[in-house]
Amino acid sequence: MFVKGARQLIGLLSRSPGSRPFPARPSPGRPFHFRRQLASLGSLPQLTKDRYPHVKRGEYANLDKQHVGFFKDLLGPNRVITDSDECEAFNVDWIKGVRGYSQCVLKPKSTEEVSKILSYCNEHRIAVCPQGGNTGLVGGSVPVFDEVVLWTGLMNEIVNLDETSGVLTCQAGCILENLESYVSERGLMIPLDLGAKGSCHIGGNVSTNAGGLRLIRYGNLHGSVLGIEAVKANGEVVDCLSTLKKDNTGYHLKHLFMGSEGTLGIVTKIAINCPPKPKAYNVAFLGLNTFEDVLKTLRKARQELGEILASCELIDDLSLDLVTTHLNVKPPFEPYPFHMLIETHGSKAEHDEEKMNNFLENIMEEGLVMNGTTTNEVNKMKSIWDLRERITESLTRDGYVFKYDISLPTEHFYSLVPIMRERLGDLSFRVCGYGHVGDGNIHLNISVHEFTKEVLERIEPYIYEVTAKYKGSVSAEHGVGFRKPKYIHYSKTNEAIALMKQLKVLMDPNGILNPYKVLPP
Amino acid sequence: MFVKGARQLIGLLSRSPGSRPFPARPSPGRPFHFRRQLASLGSLPQLTKDRYPHVKRGEYANLDKQHVGFFKDLLGPNRVITDSDECEAFNVDWIKGVRGYSQCVLKPKSTEEVSKILSYCNEHRIAVCPQGGNTGLVGGSVPVFDEVVLWTGLMNEIVNLDETSGVLTCQAGCILENLESYVSERGLMIPLDLGAKGSCHIGGNVSTNAGGLRLIRYGNLHGSVLGIEAVKANGEVVDCLSTLKKDNTGYHLKHLFMGSEGTLGIVTKIAINCPPKPKAYNVAFLGLNTFEDVLKTLRKARQELGEILASCELIDDLSLDLVTTHLNVKPPFEPYPFHMLIETHGSKAEHDEEKMNNFLENIMEEGLVMNGTTTNEVNKMKSIWDLRERITESLTRDGYVFKYDISLPTEHFYSLVPIMRERLGDLSFRVCGYGHVGDGNIHLNISVHEFTKEVLERIEPYIYEVTAKYKGSVSAEHGVGFRKPKYIHYSKTNEAIALMKQLKVLMDPNGILNPYKVLPP
Repeated sequence: MFVKGARQLIGLLSRSPGSRPFPARPSPGRPFHFRRQLASLGSLPQLTKDRYPHVKRGEYANLDKQHVGFFKDLLGPNRVITDSDECEAFNVDWIKGVRGYSQCVLKPKSTEEVSKILSYCNEHRIAVCPQGGNTGLVGGSVPVFDEVVLWTGLMNEIVNLDETSGVLTCQAGCILENLESYVSERGLMIPLDLGAKGSCHIGGNVSTNAGGLRLIRYGNLHGSVLGIEAVKANGEVVDCLSTLKKDNTGYHLKHLFMGSEGTLGIVTKIAINCPPKPKAYNVAFLGLNTFEDVLKTLRKARQELGEILASCELIDDLSLDLVTTHLNVKPPFEPYPFHMLIETHGSKAEHDEEKMNNFLENIMEEGLVMNGTTTNEVNKMKSIWDLRERITESLTRDGYVFKYDISLPTEHFYSLVPIMRERLGDLSFRVCGYGHVGDGNIHLNISVHEFTKEVLERIEPYIYEVTAKYKGSVSAEHGVGFRKPKYIHYSKTNEAIALMKQLKVLMDPNGILNPYKVLPP
Repeated sequence: MFVKGARQLIGLLSRSPGSRPFPARPSPGRPFHFRRQLASLGSLPQLTKDRYPHVKRGEYANLDKQHVGFFKDLLGPNRVITDSDECEAFNVDWIKGVRGYSQCVLKPKSTEEVSKILSYCNEHRIAVCPQGGNTGLVGGSVPVFDEVVLWTGLMNEIVNLDETSGVLTCQAGCILENLESYVSERGLMIPLDLGAKGSCHIGGNVSTNAGGLRLIRYGNLHGSVLGIEAVKANGEVVDCLSTLKKDNTGYHLKHLFMGSEGTLGIVTKIAINCPPKPKAYNVAFLGLNTFEDVLKTLRKARQELGEILASCELIDDLSLDLVTTHLNVKPPFEPYPFHMLIETHGSKAEHDEEKMNNFLENIMEEGLVMNGTTTNEVNKMKSIWDLRERITESLTRDGYVFKYDISLPTEHFYSLVPIMRERLGDLSFRVCGYGHVGDGNIHLNISVHEFTKEVLERIEPYIYEVTAKYKGSVSAEHGVGFRKPKYIHYSKTNEAIALMKQLKVLMDPNGILNPYKVLPP
């Protein structure tokens, strides 16, 4: 698997011609039972209300016995959690950056139950925090104060799969990886893939407009999601659950619920277009000396791999070092300043391998790539993907991490990393960058021994000012959540923000849905 | 070019291996200077106010000298048309089905001018009908009464093309075909293609969420359009003109303007993602005996052509007969009950041809296809596409046409044609169907010698009832416009329609933007 030099690299692919159907990759990310693990860990972050004292609790009702009684009558006692210890895991986000103190978690199973919960909460001014897999990275999925948590995990039924059209209809609480397995067995694939797939819910993916690893090939969710059923703050069900590829009958309401992070309604069902499962997969892992070479290689990949290019990821040296140090995974060769992971999906193995071989031969001959390996074997592909997908997990293993998810014009994709390294100096022990270079979306992470306001103020808003200067986005795919509302003006005009606020008032006049998130105060 | 029998058909492709870069197809549709032609034709349809007397004019201002004076001060005298003859072409839709009597056409060049026009019209309660290429088929682009026409044809500047990311930014009035030529010269393509490309404006395409001929491969506009600048009814400019592939900073407002047909705002600029131009094109034209065989061939095409499948169209016998009779174009072989047009786009000619050959060999061997021809030569591909793209045009050559644009689950794609033939009997001299079978979107056309209420009532709402029974959409890609507001409840719930109305009130409280369209009264 580990090969050095152009000729050898090209040879490798030829030596492994036995392309096999590729099952859904097992989740390489964090363990599935994260929630219980977290609760037992004991190292909880400071309460959000204390860490961010300028954020004030809204004038919502304090939950009382009568409210809880209503919920228990509706859902039964087992689906209303009020035990403090049990609630804790729903109060803390995965990266342990924020922590609420909700004392009530609701576990509806149906749209009707969600509707009744919201109708009641709206009438009684009870704030609600919708939560799916709780894999978000901007504090959007946990309460800020004592909001009731509405957890979608029991809404996990597959409603229908139309194998002719490839349209999957399911409830919002289905775990992404389970859906991938389900459709994979029937010759299809989910157009979305991301590191958290073993835990994240499709409803959360859609509500946050998740991007992920395959966007360069299969497009974004605004294109792939054909229909949505959502419940408004007042309990009204908005059924736009079309399963048709084309439907121009009035305003395209479903997009209101995509990327609004549960602040305009709670997504309860989804219809998504699933493309045919590729018959051939290839993965290449490359070592490069400069970002200039990364850009040239990306351009070559677009030209020569064309319609089979499915992922194009970048991992810098420090990001690779993190995974290999903390998670006991081995890179295929000694690290370079930059690494690229390229995956192809196609319908004919020989054609794809020929394209991949030509591409690799060309970039090696042009001296763009220093070292590389390529494979079409399932286990080896998984090993390579681990190097990319487990970075997020390994980042949590030392210190506190300031996480940034930035879109930039491709030529500036990596510009912020050296800029932030210089600005922070010894204040940070690691500034690393990785991500979806094919989409211009970098994940920039700044590690410190512990959270201090001093470091935060050294980073923000400076990092957003530079992003705005380059005409980038201060949140590419993670969303706004609790962490970024006051920074969205770097990427959105005042008129756009004003219109967002009008929409919020229209859809949720009492502001009960996921308060303190997305919109600036 | 015209070959019969499996072996010969397969042989043809091999005999034409010289695949060449494929320039933008010259517009095979109606002549570019349609407007002047129409005015000189003299055969104008009845005024909409007379044909549809139940629709009442809203309480808008009657245009007076002072209003016109404001417009002339703003735009200069040459860009304010008040001559009745000159206005006529802007009052009649292309299929001559509706006709307003506007006496004022405005031709802004910039967003700022659009903003000032709308701000003034909003203040003075002047109704405005936005118009692009006026190629719509549901009466959405012409005035119903005397609305001022805001024509976007002078807003035709290309703002920027980022050749690295492939993102094109342009004004709304650019003609689709001109954009295709522009990006084609730079190695890119517009993801959208439709028969009206020689006249339609990209702003109109986006405002109506046009679907077209390549959707099966390149997805819908909600996925491809990265940014929009639009002007609200009160003149406020909403700048969401992001050129980034990923940008999750708040609500995704641009989708409000996509498919709302100018009723929530006027689109002034667009940023659209342009994929790399394919290096190889192939077109196959097939004759089939039954719709069952069409479905099987579609499934085979999806499986075997996979990532290179770019279009999959159906033409029935009567539709083919129309083009060949009226437009002097010749089909490659004697007609069959059904014909399929399949196009592939790929990055390596030999690979694509091998895939296409295998596919054709298989469907011929299985007896799915009776006859066929395939080519990669530009002129021959154009000849074949003419058979599909010029149907709309040829339909206008005899009698009055009731046009329907329906989405249905693929297995029911053609079901409505025999149903409507039986229902109408001698009332119609032709009921034909063609369209995007790969997307489940049929264009069903019912021709009569002249419009009568009797026929209309025999067709509607019956055709929509059957569509709803099959869980289809009463407007797949043409939109709602003036013709279909009262039928959208067949495809949308009451709650969804209520939310649409709330959005309309929020965005355009005086209702000046494209009144009488999209929403039911």
